[in-house]
Amino acid sequence: MPNSFGHLFRITTWGESHGGGIGVVVDGCPPRLALTEADIQPELDRRRPGQSRIVTPRQESDTVRILSGTFEGKTLGTPICLLVQNEDARPEAYSEMAEKFRPSHADYTYVAKYGIRNWQGGGRASARETIGRVAGGAIARKILREQFGVEVLSYVKQVQRIQAHTDPETVTAPQVEANIARCPDPQAAERMIKLIEKMRRAGDSVGGIVEGVARGVPAGWGEPVFDKLEADLAKAMLSLPAAKGFDIGSGFGGILMTGTQHNDPFRARAGKVATTTNLSGGIQGGISNGATIYFRVAFKPVATVMVEQETVDIHYRNATLKGRGRHDPCVLPRAVPIVEAMTALVLVDHALRQRAQCGNPGT
Amino acid sequence: MPNSFGHLFRITTWGESHGGGIGVVVDGCPPRLALTEADIQPELDRRRPGQSRIVTPRQESDTVRILSGTFEGKTLGTPICLLVQNEDARPEAYSEMAEKFRPSHADYTYVAKYGIRNWQGGGRASARETIGRVAGGAIARKILREQFGVEVLSYVKQVQRIQAHTDPETVTAPQVEANIARCPDPQAAERMIKLIEKMRRAGDSVGGIVEGVARGVPAGWGEPVFDKLEADLAKAMLSLPAAKGFDIGSGFGGILMTGTQHNDPFRARAGKVATTTNLSGGIQGGISNGATIYFRVAFKPVATVMVEQETVDIHYRNATLKGRGRHDPCVLPRAVPIVEAMTALVLVDHALRQRAQCGNPGT
Amino acid sequence: MPNSFGHLFRITTWGESHGGGIGVVVDGCPPRLALTEADIQPELDRRRPGQSRIVTPRQESDTVRILSGTFEGKTLGTPICLLVQNEDARPEAYSEMAEKFRPSHADYTYVAKYGIRNWQGGGRASARETIGRVAGGAIARKILREQFGVEVLSYVKQVQRIQAHTDPETVTAPQVEANIARCPDPQAAERMIKLIEKMRRAGDSVGGIVEGVARGVPAGWGEPVFDKLEADLAKAMLSLPAAKGFDIGSGFGGILMTGTQHNDPFRARAGKVATTTNLSGGIQGGISNGATIYFRVAFKPVATVMVEQETVDIHYRNATLKGRGRHDPCVLPRAVPIVEAMTALVLVDHALRQRAQCGNPGT
Amino acid sequence: MPNSFGHLFRITTWGESHGGGIGVVVDGCPPRLALTEADIQPELDRRRPGQSRIVTPRQESDTVRILSGTFEGKTLGTPICLLVQNEDARPEAYSEMAEKFRPSHADYTYVAKYGIRNWQGGGRASARETIGRVAGGAIARKILREQFGVEVLSYVKQVQRIQAHTDPETVTAPQVEANIARCPDPQAAERMIKLIEKMRRAGDSVGGIVEGVARGVPAGWGEPVFDKLEADLAKAMLSLPAAKGFDIGSGFGGILMTGTQHNDPFRARAGKVATTTNLSGGIQGGISNGATIYFRVAFKPVATVMVEQETVDIHYRNATLKGRGRHDPCVLPRAVPIVEAMTALVLVDHALRQRAQCGNPGT
Repeated sequence: MPNSFGHLFRITTWGESHGGGIGVVVDGCPPRLALTEADIQPELDRRRPGQSRIVTPRQESDTVRILSGTFEGKTLGTPICLLVQNEDARPEAYSEMAEKFRPSHADYTYVAKYGIRNWQGGGRASARETIGRVAGGAIARKILREQFGVEVLSYVKQVQRIQAHTDPETVTAPQVEANIARCPDPQAAERMIKLIEKMRRAGDSVGGIVEGVARGVPAGWGEPVFDKLEADLAKAMLSLPAAKGFDIGSGFGGILMTGTQHNDPFRARAGKVATTTNLSGGIQGGISNGATIYFRVAFKPVATVMVEQETVDIHYRNATLKGRGRHDPCVLPRAVPIVEAMTALVLVDHALRQRAQCGNPGT
Repeated sequence: MPNSFGHLFRITTWGESHGGGIGVVVDGCPPRLALTEADIQPELDRRRPGQSRIVTPRQESDTVRILSGTFEGKTLGTPICLLVQNEDARPEAYSEMAEKFRPSHADYTYVAKYGIRNWQGGGRASARETIGRVAGGAIARKILREQFGVEVLSYVKQVQRIQAHTDPETVTAPQVEANIARCPDPQAAERMIKLIEKMRRAGDSVGGIVEGVARGVPAGWGEPVFDKLEADLAKAMLSLPAAKGFDIGSGFGGILMTGTQHNDPFRARAGKVATTTNLSGGIQGGISNGATIYFRVAFKPVATVMVEQETVDIHYRNATLKGRGRHDPCVLPRAVPIVEAMTALVLVDHALRQRAQCGNPGT
Repeated sequence: MPNSFGHLFRITTWGESHGGGIGVVVDGCPPRLALTEADIQPELDRRRPGQSRIVTPRQESDTVRILSGTFEGKTLGTPICLLVQNEDARPEAYSEMAEKFRPSHADYTYVAKYGIRNWQGGGRASARETIGRVAGGAIARKILREQFGVEVLSYVKQVQRIQAHTDPETVTAPQVEANIARCPDPQAAERMIKLIEKMRRAGDSVGGIVEGVARGVPAGWGEPVFDKLEADLAKAMLSLPAAKGFDIGSGFGGILMTGTQHNDPFRARAGKVATTTNLSGGIQGGISNGATIYFRVAFKPVATVMVEQETVDIHYRNATLKGRGRHDPCVLPRAVPIVEAMTALVLVDHALRQRAQCGNPGT
Repeated sequence: MPNSFGHLFRITTWGESHGGGIGVVVDGCPPRLALTEADIQPELDRRRPGQSRIVTPRQESDTVRILSGTFEGKTLGTPICLLVQNEDARPEAYSEMAEKFRPSHADYTYVAKYGIRNWQGGGRASARETIGRVAGGAIARKILREQFGVEVLSYVKQVQRIQAHTDPETVTAPQVEANIARCPDPQAAERMIKLIEKMRRAGDSVGGIVEGVARGVPAGWGEPVFDKLEADLAKAMLSLPAAKGFDIGSGFGGILMTGTQHNDPFRARAGKVATTTNLSGGIQGGISNGATIYFRVAFKPVATVMVEQETVDIHYRNATLKGRGRHDPCVLPRAVPIVEAMTALVLVDHALRQRAQCGNPGT
């Protein structure tokens, strides 16, 4: 269903950017997992607006509250409802939006689909919707880490033309968090920050690439046909606001190679099988092979800019619109925890599916 | 579930490359659609091996038979089962595969997951599995064309470094079918064919890009959050054998632009809304906006090559393996009908979902 | 998934009897439906404890709040989150439950399944869980009434040996609400009330039968095989706390007839088809035939009694347990709005499925 | 979806009574289960027509063929497609059905829903559809027996007024198979057979009750809310042709008791918990408690009778119809393997769900 994600570990999110709140129901969580708000809040803090000078200054504390599914600090196996209240309601800031469709936003398509929209700040199409994903993903990450030994992380790989030098095998979470760009290459990070600040001053925006990594995934997760691990990751990533592309392993670059160059040779070592290269990105035939999973997500420059643009009004008459107030000149730094959350949600779902069908956690 | 795709128009495929057959059950098809094998066979013929000198010479007629769901040439609304018998069973050709894992194939990951595999020709991981998709997709395309006025097509956009000049707005199916490369740019097609023939002689393989297009999709198809139209397309495409990447509209290239350059201005014309550019690729906020949908899928060079490679055997000892017999030096020409089928399956599912929730076919 | 119900109109409920609250997310609601809390609260008031002298005196106002999915009093097409805070938290009243399993409650089975339970008042197994169903069902009923002309109601048909004389074709909602037993036969109602009061004084409980009715359902709703309309109703009803049986139309009584006696003859009148009897209960082959749908649900005498009983403690040692405080001597009167809610949820889901596949609302 | 049943062990059936064939795809089967046609055929033989003098003499061998999902006699973990060809096609026998709706059959409702029907012998509404269920259920039973130690069986408990004396705790499969009525009480069986023969001669039909039993189910299977074990059983049973009612444990009879009489006391023995009575039918709060699960299914007298009846024709004009040829005067004996199949399908699905969420097979 449209607002649920996952099969055995399933999140259902709800909420608009303005209204009572934003939240998520997590269904299928294993019982007896230690869980309090303190496990979730740090991930929301990495996602929230106002966290640094290169993101939107919108003020929201995004404080999470567990409404159900735990007892004395442990999960019950029943659905976990997480709620974040909306705080920064300034409907007056959106009065022009009530009358005009913002270019390359979802304003027009929502009206085309539903015949109605909440014009206050984007409604359901607002990036605030990702709060539920990050909150649910925090639980998924905890399960992966504690019960399966899997580590998930991501980082800003590229902003416009500025590319970072990074290695999916060795990059660490502290390196990612070491700067406000969330880019583990300090030189590139510095240049990215300068570019983003320049864009903010110009009222414009830039896009880029987030690279996602999962290490420690055992061989055997994923399904052979439609629910290939890379297919579920692709869906997860393309479901994010502003995402325009996904590739895994060698990805789009791999098409320049021949098959003999591209194949990853298997070698045996100490009774285990590993590949000597990893152009496959840790997945073969839709199923993890034990190597590091890594992939990239392309985010477009966000549509909200502080520049006058051509558009139409709700009466389908030509008009112009100039964004006012706050904007996020580059979503990449805030996208990092969201990509991690979605990655964790995909993986924990497949971990449980593996356990259900094959009776083991992978090999 | 792993072998089903779609919610309201759902296909469930089964079958291995060697065994009784390959097939699909189509559930949710509208009743009273005129349907015989003649509606499906031409798409299977575009997919089948042996169709030209640049694809694998494996001989399979891939003749489809409707086992259920129609009566006197019309659909009943009940599930449609389509069956294609396997013909070219040569288990002796695969004896070495019984003992060794082919590099960058699914042999090893299937064993890691299931503890068992059908080593005859790839089993469920064989590209023969896509027969069910193409057969089900043929029905989806018919519904889209006849009941919603939507046209789906795709073509080879790039083989290794050879890029075609094409326009998603104007390219036609006859142009695609005009040559065995399925590339509507005749000059590029000629060069692609030469390259593929060279690869076949070398026992090697090449990859490339297929571009998919859907024209005539009304505004309003797609869901706002997880089941965004581009998310479902991404999953559909990354579920294909050898697919490594997906991007839509401006895609990975769009990250070099700024927001003011990237936004698609809305303009009104004759009481309708349209954008003057289409960097969004026909989708905004997960929902179609009425413009042409276009996207790209990256296919790696296929793993089966006729060259000796390092690998391990099923006892986890180092070994070498040299492919023998037939191979497909470039899957792109045969991938075209498969990309079209998956595109149609995604779209018809969203058409029915739109009708269910909103009571109209879009605007 | 375990905490979701429905396919196209799907509710996901969460919450324990003690904890932050109880709620539901409604996904798939058509847009532009007028909806405020005033549409939902009356149904919750019919369900809530403390409403009369024959139900549990537990004090809960069960005030609902819409957190998302509406704007200016209309549904957006996005998920509707409904929240009811828990008020009557008296953990001290449950201290004995922390140590002992109540007979014929879910205490033991939850521990067997999850290895943990919220022992405060039943946790997720509490009848408070049905708040989410009734809240979601109120929206379903509104859609059925306003958009499809379908009326859903139910009533107490039997309490222990006291049977009501009722006619599914003519009974009205005011008749049901005319007494606190929710039995439209006033004489039977009076006797039921006396029996229930006697049971309350004895610290014991009684069960009975609720009859459910849906009038105005067009022919064509339901699916032929697994999702037969009666199958979905059966699941809906057997998912209710204390439900032990379901039958439809002639039901268990019909087995005493022969086929010639049982068949409902079709007759034509004014270009429409109707049956002259209705032993089928409005459904044939899983699909509605236009006649009134009616069925019965058997509820056991509830397990909470104020009498000493044999049981075991959490260390698996024999023990005795005597319920204390408040109890509900007969759940039937409060079950009425819950049966109606589940009926409405089943029907609206099939209404949307009919619209999706067949493109019409039934005939 | 309408033609699929189950979440983790999912069957998708297709096929009409006349047409290419009938079949099922089983998705989610654990790998490495020994499986050949010989595991499935005996269950189909128990279901097939022509097996005794009290069932329809229609001649069908119902020979099953495994098309996919196994290799060298073991399951692969991939979807298992099972096919049974239709043999007894006598379209001329159904010419009158093309023009008239049979009373209390699905003929009219299919037309109301789909605007089309296969009038040859019932099409999708034919009891032949249950072939796919029985075939899939045979695999489910094998898994339950070999991997979980669970035994499933059922038997004819009542035909019209003739009730059998049976004990769910001790009845055996050989006792059930000892006579053609499939009633383990020999005296009752004899009377049932006489009644059914009398009905056949009269061209009439009778209904009755099948009792289903599952022994050895560990505590912990089932979900607390919508997917309660009894709810899924109820849906499974009410999805069967001619089923009109379901109750479990004390069922409809339990409403005559009070709570103190009805509660099942827990007692500890040898470190395990068991109840001293079993009015709950082995399930409390939707979750198995380790006791024997038993329930009843009411089947109406089948609608096909050899007597003239009032009906309407396809032009909605009054008409009469007299059944000709073969009929099944009582479906109960053939319903036994079908009830067992559906029970097994429900249980194995919950076994896998338990394993997925809780990481153990129950307690």
